[in-house]
Parts: sequence; C-alpha cells; structure tokens
Amino acid sequence: VLFTYLHLAPAPELTKALLDRKIVGIAYETVQLDSGSLPLLTPMSEVAGKLSVQIGARWLEKENGGSGVLLGGVPGTPPGRVAIVGGGVVGTNAAKVALGMGAAVTILDINLDRLRYLADVFGSSLRVLASDSHSIEQAVAEADLVIGALLIPGAKAKKVITKAMMAKMRRGSAIVDVAIDQGGCVEGAVPTSHENPVIDVDGVTLCCIANLPGAVARTSTFALTNATFPYVAKLADQGYKDALAADPALFRGLNVLRGDLVCRAVAEGVGMKHVACTIADL
Amino acid sequence: VLFTYLHLAPAPELTKALLDRKIVGIAYETVQLDSGSLPLLTPMSEVAGKLSVQIGARWLEKENGGSGVLLGGVPGTPPGRVAIVGGGVVGTNAAKVALGMGAAVTILDINLDRLRYLADVFGSSLRVLASDSHSIEQAVAEADLVIGALLIPGAKAKKVITKAMMAKMRRGSAIVDVAIDQGGCVEGAVPTSHENPVIDVDGVTLCCIANLPGAVARTSTFALTNATFPYVAKLADQGYKDALAADPALFRGLNVLRGDLVCRAVAEGVGMKHVACTIADL
Amino acid sequence: VLFTYLHLAPAPELTKALLDRKIVGIAYETVQLDSGSLPLLTPMSEVAGKLSVQIGARWLEKENGGSGVLLGGVPGTPPGRVAIVGGGVVGTNAAKVALGMGAAVTILDINLDRLRYLADVFGSSLRVLASDSHSIEQAVAEADLVIGALLIPGAKAKKVITKAMMAKMRRGSAIVDVAIDQGGCVEGAVPTSHENPVIDVDGVTLCCIANLPGAVARTSTFALTNATFPYVAKLADQGYKDALAADPALFRGLNVLRGDLVCRAVAEGVGMKHVACTIADL
Amino acid sequence: VLFTYLHLAPAPELTKALLDRKIVGIAYETVQLDSGSLPLLTPMSEVAGKLSVQIGARWLEKENGGSGVLLGGVPGTPPGRVAIVGGGVVGTNAAKVALGMGAAVTILDINLDRLRYLADVFGSSLRVLASDSHSIEQAVAEADLVIGALLIPGAKAKKVITKAMMAKMRRGSAIVDVAIDQGGCVEGAVPTSHENPVIDVDGVTLCCIANLPGAVARTSTFALTNATFPYVAKLADQGYKDALAADPALFRGLNVLRGDLVCRAVAEGVGMKHVACTIADL
Amino acid sequence: VLFTYLHLAPAPELTKALLDRKIVGIAYETVQLDSGSLPLLTPMSEVAGKLSVQIGARWLEKENGGSGVLLGGVPGTPPGRVAIVGGGVVGTNAAKVALGMGAAVTILDINLDRLRYLADVFGSSLRVLASDSHSIEQAVAEADLVIGALLIPGAKAKKVITKAMMAKMRRGSAIVDVAIDQGGCVEGAVPTSHENPVIDVDGVTLCCIANLPGAVARTSTFALTNATFPYVAKLADQGYKDALAADPALFRGLNVLRGDLVCRAVAEGVGMKHVACTIADL
Amino acid sequence: VLFTYLHLAPAPELTKALLDRKIVGIAYETVQLDSGSLPLLTPMSEVAGKLSVQIGARWLEKENGGSGVLLGGVPGTPPGRVAIVGGGVVGTNAAKVALGMGAAVTILDINLDRLRYLADVFGSSLRVLASDSHSIEQAVAEADLVIGALLIPGAKAKKVITKAMMAKMRRGSAIVDVAIDQGGCVEGAVPTSHENPVIDVDGVTLCCIANLPGAVARTSTFALTNATFPYVAKLADQGYKDALAADPALFRGLNVLRGDLVCRAVAEGVGMKHVACTIADL
Repeated sequence: VLFTYLHLAPAPELTKALLDRKIVGIAYETVQLDSGSLPLLTPMSEVAGKLSVQIGARWLEKENGGSGVLLGGVPGTPPGRVAIVGGGVVGTNAAKVALGMGAAVTILDINLDRLRYLADVFGSSLRVLASDSHSIEQAVAEADLVIGALLIPGAKAKKVITKAMMAKMRRGSAIVDVAIDQGGCVEGAVPTSHENPVIDVDGVTLCCIANLPGAVARTSTFALTNATFPYVAKLADQGYKDALAADPALFRGLNVLRGDLVCRAVAEGVGMKHVACTIADL
Repeated sequence: VLFTYLHLAPAPELTKALLDRKIVGIAYETVQLDSGSLPLLTPMSEVAGKLSVQIGARWLEKENGGSGVLLGGVPGTPPGRVAIVGGGVVGTNAAKVALGMGAAVTILDINLDRLRYLADVFGSSLRVLASDSHSIEQAVAEADLVIGALLIPGAKAKKVITKAMMAKMRRGSAIVDVAIDQGGCVEGAVPTSHENPVIDVDGVTLCCIANLPGAVARTSTFALTNATFPYVAKLADQGYKDALAADPALFRGLNVLRGDLVCRAVAEGVGMKHVACTIADL
Repeated sequence: VLFTYLHLAPAPELTKALLDRKIVGIAYETVQLDSGSLPLLTPMSEVAGKLSVQIGARWLEKENGGSGVLLGGVPGTPPGRVAIVGGGVVGTNAAKVALGMGAAVTILDINLDRLRYLADVFGSSLRVLASDSHSIEQAVAEADLVIGALLIPGAKAKKVITKAMMAKMRRGSAIVDVAIDQGGCVEGAVPTSHENPVIDVDGVTLCCIANLPGAVARTSTFALTNATFPYVAKLADQGYKDALAADPALFRGLNVLRGDLVCRAVAEGVGMKHVACTIADL
Repeated sequence: VLFTYLHLAPAPELTKALLDRKIVGIAYETVQLDSGSLPLLTPMSEVAGKLSVQIGARWLEKENGGSGVLLGGVPGTPPGRVAIVGGGVVGTNAAKVALGMGAAVTILDINLDRLRYLADVFGSSLRVLASDSHSIEQAVAEADLVIGALLIPGAKAKKVITKAMMAKMRRGSAIVDVAIDQGGCVEGAVPTSHENPVIDVDGVTLCCIANLPGAVARTSTFALTNATFPYVAKLADQGYKDALAADPALFRGLNVLRGDLVCRAVAEGVGMKHVACTIADL
Repeated sequence: VLFTYLHLAPAPELTKALLDRKIVGIAYETVQLDSGSLPLLTPMSEVAGKLSVQIGARWLEKENGGSGVLLGGVPGTPPGRVAIVGGGVVGTNAAKVALGMGAAVTILDINLDRLRYLADVFGSSLRVLASDSHSIEQAVAEADLVIGALLIPGAKAKKVITKAMMAKMRRGSAIVDVAIDQGGCVEGAVPTSHENPVIDVDGVTLCCIANLPGAVARTSTFALTNATFPYVAKLADQGYKDALAADPALFRGLNVLRGDLVCRAVAEGVGMKHVACTIADL
Repeated sequence: VLFTYLHLAPAPELTKALLDRKIVGIAYETVQLDSGSLPLLTPMSEVAGKLSVQIGARWLEKENGGSGVLLGGVPGTPPGRVAIVGGGVVGTNAAKVALGMGAAVTILDINLDRLRYLADVFGSSLRVLASDSHSIEQAVAEADLVIGALLIPGAKAKKVITKAMMAKMRRGSAIVDVAIDQGGCVEGAVPTSHENPVIDVDGVTLCCIANLPGAVARTSTFALTNATFPYVAKLADQGYKDALAADPALFRGLNVLRGDLVCRAVAEGVGMKHVACTIADL
C-alpha cells in the first residue's frame, strides 16, 4: 500500500510499474473532501504562498538584477508595491508576508465574498480589488513584485498575466508564478528549478520554481505530516480496505488497486484503460 | 567642496590626496547632532535592519545549506525563531520585518527604557529581554536566525555572540552580522560581499556582507537623499563657510579644510598631524 | 413546563420525580442545532474559557503556592507561557485573555481548518500547533499555565494531558481543566469547588472547578439569557406543543413529556425505559 | 484680568481699548513652554486635524460637487487616497481619522525623526514620505483628498501646494487647508466660513474654513478647558502677579499690562510702542 | 433584454410597459443565491454602511444643528458614542468607519453567532450586545449617533427605534436610518433626499436619505459593476436563455418574460396576473 | 557596603544600627536619574500595574464577594468597566492588561502630553480623559474595577478617590490601591497583606496589598535585577567610592556613609541630624 504524492497522469511507465506490481496506490493529490477541497495540497499552498514573497523580494536586489527596491521601504521613502493575483490559500499567505514586510499590497480575486473576508481579517491595510483584465493590468504595471497565485483546483491555470502587462513594469521588477505546477498563470512561464530559478523577460525577472515548498523542507514536512497523519493512522489502524470504505475523501485518492487503474483522470492522462471501482470492489 | 561618505580613517593615501588638493571635505559619517546621533547614518541602519531579515531568511532555505525552516511557519507548524541582539535602529527595523513575516521574535538590549518603548509600540507580540551574556546565549541557542545588531556609535562592536553560543544552534541556522562595518559583533565574523556572502561556521551560516544597503540601491538612495538634502541645500544656498558656521552638526562633519586635517579621529587613524579648527578658521 | 439545565442522566431520583409529576421537561444541555452545536452551552463555554486564564493566573502567585510568574512579564523579562489544549470555543476565548495579558500563547488542535481560522484572526501573535501527543507534551512541559480545553460535544473528554507530562513542568506551575464537567482531560483530575479549588500534583497546581462560570454569575446570566430568550419567547408565544413542533433544535431538548422519558441518552444514564416520541406525540 | 484668545496683532482698536482700560491681558495663543510648544493651541490642532478629514470627505460626495469617491471604498473597489502635507499635531490626527475610514493615506514631512515615530506608531498602513516639492506634487496629483497641515508655530505658512499641482488632481477632488488661520498653505486659499465653506478652483473644491474647531464646539470646549484649567487655577489661587512670576510659560502669554503693551509681536502687528517687561515689573 | 434595477412592485405602469414591449426583464434586486443572499444588493449595503457614519458625523456639527461632538474626541475628552442597531453587512461596515474615526461603538444584533464573528474580527474595541428592546433603548439613549441598520432581506424593517427612545437622547444627537428603502427601522422615518436630508424629531436629527450610495457614485458604480459583471458576461456570452437556464440565481432575477409577468412578488405588488415559469419555458 | 531597598525614613532603629556599624548604605528607592525618574522603582511599578488588574479581577468573582462580572464579558454581554486613575508607569501597565482582558478601560491623568502618547500607542480602544475631581467621580461611579495608580515620585499620594465616590459604585465592585506604599490614593485605604488582602467599604472591596510585586517573585526578581545589575557591576568593578563619584544617580542613592546620615529626607523622617556630603567626602 503506497500513500504519497504519485502524480501518475504524466507518467505512463511509473503507472504501469505500479499496476504490474499490484500496488494499492493512494495519491495525496487526489484525496478530496466532499466540499471539493484538497486537504493534502492546502499545506503546500500555504508554504508556497509565504515563500513566494520571501523569494520574490530577493530578485529585486541589485546583485540579482533587480531594481534595488526594499519591499518595506524605510520612513521617508515609498514602500515597494506587491500585486497578488488570486486571493485563495496561496494569495492570502503571500499577502500576510508582503504586508508584514511593510509593502503596499493589492490582492485581486473574482470572488467578492472572499474579498470581503480578507477585508474583515486584514482591515484597511490590504487593498482588495475585483479581478478583471483591466484591474490586473493596472496592478501589475505599478507593482515591483507580482505573485501569480491563480490556482483553480484540478484545472490548468489561465495565463492572466500577459507579456503586454509585463512590458509596462519597471525594469528590474519581478514576478513569482506559484501556479507553475499547473502550467503557470504568467505568459511565457516555464518551470524552473531552485538551481536555475529565473528567466529574464525583457528586463522583468520571472521566477517559476517548480516545487517551491522544497526550499523549506523542514517546515513543509511538519505541515504535510499534520495533514496526512490522520489518514495514515486510519490506514494503519483499520487496514486499507476498511479505511477506504469508511472515508470517501480517502477513497477518492485511490489511483491503482491491485492491478486496476481506478482513477479516471489518471487513465486519461496516461492513455490506459480505466476500471470503475466502488467500495464493494475493495 | 566634497560632501559624501569619506571614510578617511583607514585610508592615508586618500587623505593625503585630499589634503594636497586643498579640498574642503565634509564626511557624511561624522556629521553629528548635539544629541550624539548620526543623522546621515540612520537611514542606512534602517535599510540594513530591514534587509538583514530578508537576506537571513534565505540562508535557512535547503538549497542554500539551511535547515529548511520557513520563518512564519504555517498554521499547525511552529514558526521560526529570530533573536535580535541590539534594540537600536537596526534591531527595531529587523524586528518589524521578522514579526511581519510571522516569526517568533526576541530582541535583547541593555537599555531598559528602549525595551519599554519597544513594548509600547509592538505590544506583546515582541519578546523584549534585558541583554546579558546569559540571556544572549539562551536566545541564540534557540534561534533559527540571529541578527547581530549591536552598534555603538563611533566604537568598535563587541563580540557578544561567541562561537560557543553558535555551537548550540541547530545545524543549518543562520546569523547576519549587521555590525560588520564596525568590526562585527559575532566571533569569527569577517566582511563578506554580495557575491560571496557567507561563511560556514561549524554548520551555522554566517553572513557578514559589508555595505548591506547596496543591495537595495534604489530605496537606499532615496533614504539617504532625504537625510542629506537639507545639508546640501544649505551648502548650496549659503556657501560652505556660512553653512558650516551656522550648523554645528555639519561642522562636526568637516574632515579636511584647504590642506589641514581638522578631524581628530581621522588624524589618529591615518597617523597624521591634527590641526584644531574653530568657526573662526573657516 | 420546565425549561432549564436538567442534567438528569446521573440523577434517577430527580428523573423519577419529574416523570411522576408529568412535567414537560426541556433541558438546555440537549437543545441542539442541525449542525450538531449546542447553542445553550456555547455561552457558558465562552465564559469558562475567558475565566480559566484569569483564575489560572492566580495559582502562579507565590502566596498560592505558585512559581511567582507574571503572565505578561514586564519589558526585559520573559513573559509567562500558556499552553491551551483545544482550539474550540473554550480554547479560543482562553487564548484571547492569555494573549491580552501579554503571555506567550500556544494553542493546539487537531482540526487544521480551525487553526487556519485562528491564524487569520489572531495573526502571528498566537502560535497554532497541530495537536498530537508529542506536541502536547512539549507545549505542556514548557508552559507556566496549561488550559485543558478539549471538549468533544456529547463525549467524555480524553485524558490527553498525562501525569508524565505534568512531571516535566516547572514546580509551581498550574493547570486549569475546563473539561472537568465531562470528566476532565487531565490525568488525575477530579471535580473541585470554588471553595476548595485546587489539587497539588507533585508540585503542579491542578484546578478543576466544576461550574466555573458560576464565579461570574452576573455576566453568565446575561450571556445565558441572550441564548435562551428566543426559545423562552417561542414557548411563551406559541405554547410548548407548537414551539417544539416548529423548532427541531428545541425538540431535541425534550427530556420528559407528561410522564414519558423521551430522551434516549438520559434513559440510558438513569437505567429507565425510553419512550420514543415524534412531533405527532406532542 | 483677561485670560482668553486675544489675537491682538491684527486689531489695533481692540488693543487700544484694552490698554485704555488698563487691562491685564494674557493671551492663550502666546502662552508658550520652554520647549517652544504652544500648549493652549495644541488641543485645537488636534480637533482641527480630526475634523479636517470628516469635513473633507463630504466634498467628495456627488451632491457637493465631488467626484463621488467613498474614502474607504468597499471590498473590490479601490479606496480613496488622502495626502496629508505636514506630520505635526494636525497631520497626525488627520491621519488617524483617514486611516480609520479606510483610505490609503500618505503623510509628508521634512522631519525624518517625526516620520520614524509615525512609522513606529502607525505601522506599515501609513505611507510616510519625506516632503519636498516633487513628492508633494506627486502625492497631491494622485489624491482624492488633500489636507494642508503645514503649521509652523508663530510663522506664516508657506504655499507649498500650488495651483499647478491642483491642476493635476482629478476633477471633483478636494483640499482642506487647515493652515488657513496662518494664511494657508495652499495657493489661492482665502478664509471661508462654516456657512460658505468652499471655493472652486478649476474643478477642485478648496475648503478653508477659519476656526474649524467651532463646528464641534462641545468637544472643543472640553479639550480647551483641559489645557487652560491648570493656568486658570493658578491665576485664581495665587493672583495674577504671583502666577505670572512663577510660571514662565504663562508670563510669555502676557500681552497688555495695566496700560503697557508688553508683547513685542503684538506691538509690531499693531504698530504701537512696545514696553519691555520683566517679572520685577509685575 | 433588460438587466438592471427594475423595482417594479410599486410601479404598475412601468410593469405594463415592459410587458407590452415583450421585454425580457431581469431585476438586480431579485437575483438571489441558493443561500438566500442577494449578491447585487450587498455592494450597495457596504457603501451605505460606510457612508452612514460619514454622513451622520456631520449632523453632530454645530452649524448643522448638532450637539458639537467630534466622534473621535481628542486625548483628554470623551469620544462620541455610536450605537449601531443591526450587525449585518450595513452594520459591520458602519462599525468599521465609526471605530476608525475613534468613536466608542456598540453594535446590537439578535444573532449571537454573528456577534461572535464580529468579536473575533474586531477584538475588544467593539462592544457587541445581544439586541432586545431593553439593550437598544439603553444604547440609543447614550448615543451621540445611532445607525439604524436593521435590514431583513425581502421584508419590511421593524420600527425598533422608537420615539420614546429618541426622547432620551441628548439634544443635537443624530440618527441615520439606512433601512429607509425598506420602510425604515426608526419610528417616524420618512424618506428624505440628498437635497433635504433630515427631519428634526424633538431636537434629534433624523436622516433618512433614500438611495444613500448615490452620494458616492464613483465608488458605488465600481462596487456594483464588480458584482453584476459576471452575470452580464454570461448573458452576453451565452444568450439570455442559456444563461438563465444555467444559473438559478440569475433565473430568480427574471421578472418579465416576453409579455408574461413571472415574478410572484412583483405580481402581488402591482396586482397583475402571475404566470409561473420554469426553465423549460425560456 | 549595602545596596538594596533600605526604606529608612520610617525606621529610626534600623537607621541607628546602620550608622553605628558605619555601613555605607545605598538605597534602591533613592537612586535617581537627572530627569528625576527612579530607575530602581520603575520595574516594580510595571509589575504592580500589570498585577493590579489580575488581582482586582478576582474580587469581582461571586465567591470573593464580588458582583460576578467578567472583565471581558462575552459576545452579547457588556464588558466590565475599568477606571485607572493615573497614567504613569503603573497606570499604563494596568491599562495593557485590562484592555487585553477585554474590558472597557478609561484612564485619567492631568498630563495632557502623557494622554496624547497613550492615545498614539493604544489607539482608540483606550479612553483617555483629563483628570479632575468631576471626571474621576464619573469614571469611578461607572466602574466595576478601579485602579488607584496615582504615584507622585517622593510625595505622599493624594486621596483623590473619596468615600463619596465609592458610594456610587455598584455593590460588589472593587478597587485596588497601588499607591498604598505611599499612603494610598483612596480614602480609607490602609495597607493590607497577601494573606488578608481586602477591606469591605460599604459593599465595595478595597484591596491595598503592600508590596504587591511580591506575589510574582520570580518575574519581579528578574525585572529588578535587570535594573540593578549595571549599578552592582559598577560597585564591584570600581569600588564604592569611584562608582559613587562617577555616577550622580547612584550618589543620590547614598543614605548612610560610615556613620553619617547623608540623606536629608531620611534624616527628617527619623528625626536625626543630617550631614551634608559631597563627592569630596567619599
């Protein structure tokens, strides 16, 4: 029984190997609550959101080709401006750090109720704007640092931050595309690594590190374990059959079952045959 | 008339050149108010303080040899701990950013009235401790990130953070010694550069970048100009003689005057003859 | 018609008396919303949570056998540490007071979404940790004051704070077990009274006052009346039959009905016969 | 003995009348502490600062010819922008109200130490900029509401907000010139009244109400009495001679003494003969 | 296809005209989510709530017949007191501005869970009281400014603020009845206009401006467009039939459909025949 | 050489003993900075201020004869009211705890500049009033808990809280007189002990524990040591003669010197002969 991130959809050979060995494979990334939320991805989004600003700030430094702006400024100078596109888990955590560092922060989201919650919790220090192509363009053009935090669960991110918008930014500004693991929400974004983290796009530094949370492995491990442990405990206590049968969220995580490929999305991804599976089949 | 940072004390040749050319040289770093404060150094201390945490955070990242701790943690995990030794301008600004990023922050100072002001302004989110070797040792041992912010105007910093203390820190933790321009307050600290910023001390990353504010040149320039401009305006409006005569703070900044070395501290530093100078000599 | 706290489960004689007199008895403690929450217990949990820290602080005083720690400390000294086990209504209210008094506060809960809400609302001044036996042990060992706030609606509290943990606390530290009305969440806890409020457990003061809110009767009365009044108004306006028929939450509060014992949990508690009752039986 | 606001400088006839009647006249506006501060003007500056934003907000309303901007905006819309020129008592109090109403607030002052204090107290929600003609121009051009709060004790205010700057503001924006009692800091400002409060300057509403605090007479009276009462008590308890002799601040308030005009500034203002006066002359 | 505020219920002639012309009329005010909330009214409630305090403050000014109270007071004087009856969207936004201006604010609501949320978000600076006739009477009697914010979706507001309560207020105090568009929650309230905004009720100024948000048209327009745009986009992209069929909230907004009056509430209001309509009838 | 609290003024026998033994006695309580502040009393005032509210809260509990008010209230109920007479070190620290516990807090002081600082630091959550007999009376009459924090360095406290005021308080309310070590600022106050802490004054509980900080000995010891250590270090490093000669603050602490009684205030207190002493006499 394998319970971890599997990411089988783009990996036919790995999938075949798991099927051949009759593994019972439950994937973190497809465990899903009735509400649709993905409880084993949320902690990584929190880490990525906080980290995105910490990492983005350094690309504004002179040595790293940046414009030489300190996010918080000092009394007498204007603070740096941060635009965060997307007000979900990633964006909210990015906003906490950006505000904390003293920047002037704008967050954009299409969900007005989410903006209202953010306004309640952050007070008037956070500027919350309804997101549309016009407001994004204006916020991006004015920003020293842009955080692309547009994550739609289970869908490819839209390229809402265009090259045309980036062309209006001050040279030496930076963008961190946290949505890169879903294809990115910035035009031209391709996954980069912690070793070669950035691309220059006409004078704007674009950072698209895949697996951002890996940089703070200690915190990420605690955060992930907090979320996975209750499921691990169930699997260990009850055995995989009873645990899967009793918890629909966990059952949705089942990808491969003793030689059968039971997750439709993975089957489509690898081009193999999907076998429907109910609790009775466990 | 030259009005800028001169730093003549360790530079006999430069001093001689200025004397030979009969320059009127006023040094930013020796302009001093009646209260003893150095108004043209304060903005750089503010920038350095804020930057020290931003830069320190990255040495906790895995790729940079760090312990993998995210300063703010995420809900459910412990936040990183930051110990700031010194509660002056540098330390206060470091505390603002560290608290803003969500860390658990302790600041240590020997001046109780300063601690009281910090407690008033920051509320109970900042832990303010009286500084002595015992409290420093304990705070350093527990910290993921230590900021050495012990700056005594015009004096060499004391090495209050010892190698013995550093040996008690978790491997992969980091120290930023902001006092490095005055010799450093961390045992073993030697100036490093933005290109080669850190030294490894038995598994602890020690960052002693000289001229830290250079990394955010844009903000630093605005900050410095805000402070120097009123003096520049006086020099331009009134001529250097009247300006120096009218403003004792500016007069204290005078280092070389038409061939005479009039600043005692510089004279001692370069081993040349000091010529006393009063307003009447202008 | 009797509408108040009945607490019949451990009281067979009282139950019999009510049945004999054909009372229509609706118990505050079993009125329950569709969401499972107990609206007439919540106000008492709020009071108990706030009061627990106010009362706990005094057991740290020297005269009361405490370690002589002031929760908030003063500038220059370390603040007291408070560990709150459970982040529900009791724990959240305890955290408000403990933070307000200036303590360094850690709250532990197994529900990550609850921790996220607390992190949003309290910001980084509150340390929110995922609860497991390891994190509880560490938090308790470091704490000057522990609040046992683990209340699971309708269930006996688990003894998550063990004697082994308490043995690691500094002598003169204190624990307030707010869960005592459900059996307590601290090993060795037995109900105490406002007159004899504490037990010494190897140098740690354990306070398990039953009916904690009674200490602030004026506030408790207002708080309770705010919650009960809408139900009282319905009973008065519509008569008990229509009121019970129209409000499922109130109907769940019905314990005894004109001689029948209609609440299964009470019937089991007193060992009498349960009579099923539907709205049609009113 | 007359102890109140006298404002004799522009009033030769009133001055003559007081002299003829041999009044002992002590003017609130010239009572001055050794530090140079004017303790009986400060409360009125506090009231005026808070009131300026409350009054300014209404000139942004559509019915009053404004641009229809709500200072705080609502979640999803940009907040109004407020620029406050001057960070003294008036400006600080204006900033409190403007931030409280949810606006994006910039405050400008030439005193960096004052800006540092404001940054400590308000945190990063207030943008504090060094004041020069360039930064004022930019802040004014972007602002929906400008507060002219440039008050230099005992001097005529400078016209730092020019018509050229106002021409760059959005039509329907507004300016409140709180410095009007000292001549105003906005080009074109002339005193207006509560009845006819504003002037239109090319589409920008300019409000220069003299005696702004009169609008909230109840609060102003309490505030003023708090400040004047200790002096009144001294005058009543000790008689005017001993009170004046014992308190240099009060003595500086003396304008006319039994027929002599003893305040030099007033003498110059009214063009009459100044009679020097020492404590011995009382 | 007409998609805007229609307000047909009190307008038979307008209704008839729309029917005659076979208009497809979708009314903002009846678009309703499954949760019962009215997403196209919420932004206007937010604007009205914030504006109510801004507008109310001016009726306390002396020139406007007020008691001369400054809401925030100044250090040394008591702040003004604001009582907000109703803790929904209007009341919460009113509380934000009133607290921000420095007033002592009490908010009253019958929903204890709403009060708990407000206490979490605002902390202890906001006094949250359970609403009943007694607590309203006491809060109103003490208040300098009362905000009537009792809005029950789709129902006529109750007159919870009586003339007897108003008689206990200090002369020159003020009330803003934001519920006036639903008939008002203040006894004696009749709609007023921005031109003639207030009524005097025995010395208390009662302001009942209909369409309050009109005063800040610019902000209101942005706020409304943020909410309506997603629906407009659907109507434009999919055509009205598919858009209405796919979105139940939008479908509830349908009032007139090609000659049929399909909204029951409007039909009752204008006394015309209601024609039931299902998605199949589109 | 004795360096500790001596409190000789009311203790002639102790004084004689010290003189007879030719002790060099330096008293903590008379060490005084040039500014007039007493650096070795300040930490105890901080502790006493914070502790006063913690201790006062318990006298509102029912078991202790109190009115049953919870200082913070809970959502839906009014919070308790705390009036703090005196805004110095004691009062400010009392305000921090009282606000933190959720009470509605009023602080009164005659120093307007102090009130302004408190308003800056606490924002509008603290009500700051100018102190006079009228405002004290009103605040006391409304309060559930009164903190007497009127400490004038070196002077007997005035009885500003009279029995007439106390008679207007609700029965079961409480007063903590922190000024008791200087005679108390409450009419009828006599020193009580931690064992018998309170007096009943017509239904109001009056707590006048002498040496309040003793209750939290651990915190008090750290706090005091932080303040005394620098002086101890000087005495140990330099010997008492040089240390006293070099530090005027320490010199002011000298009470008895090798048989001479050199502190005038003590001499008056014990009725013995005062011997003037200069640095030359050391």
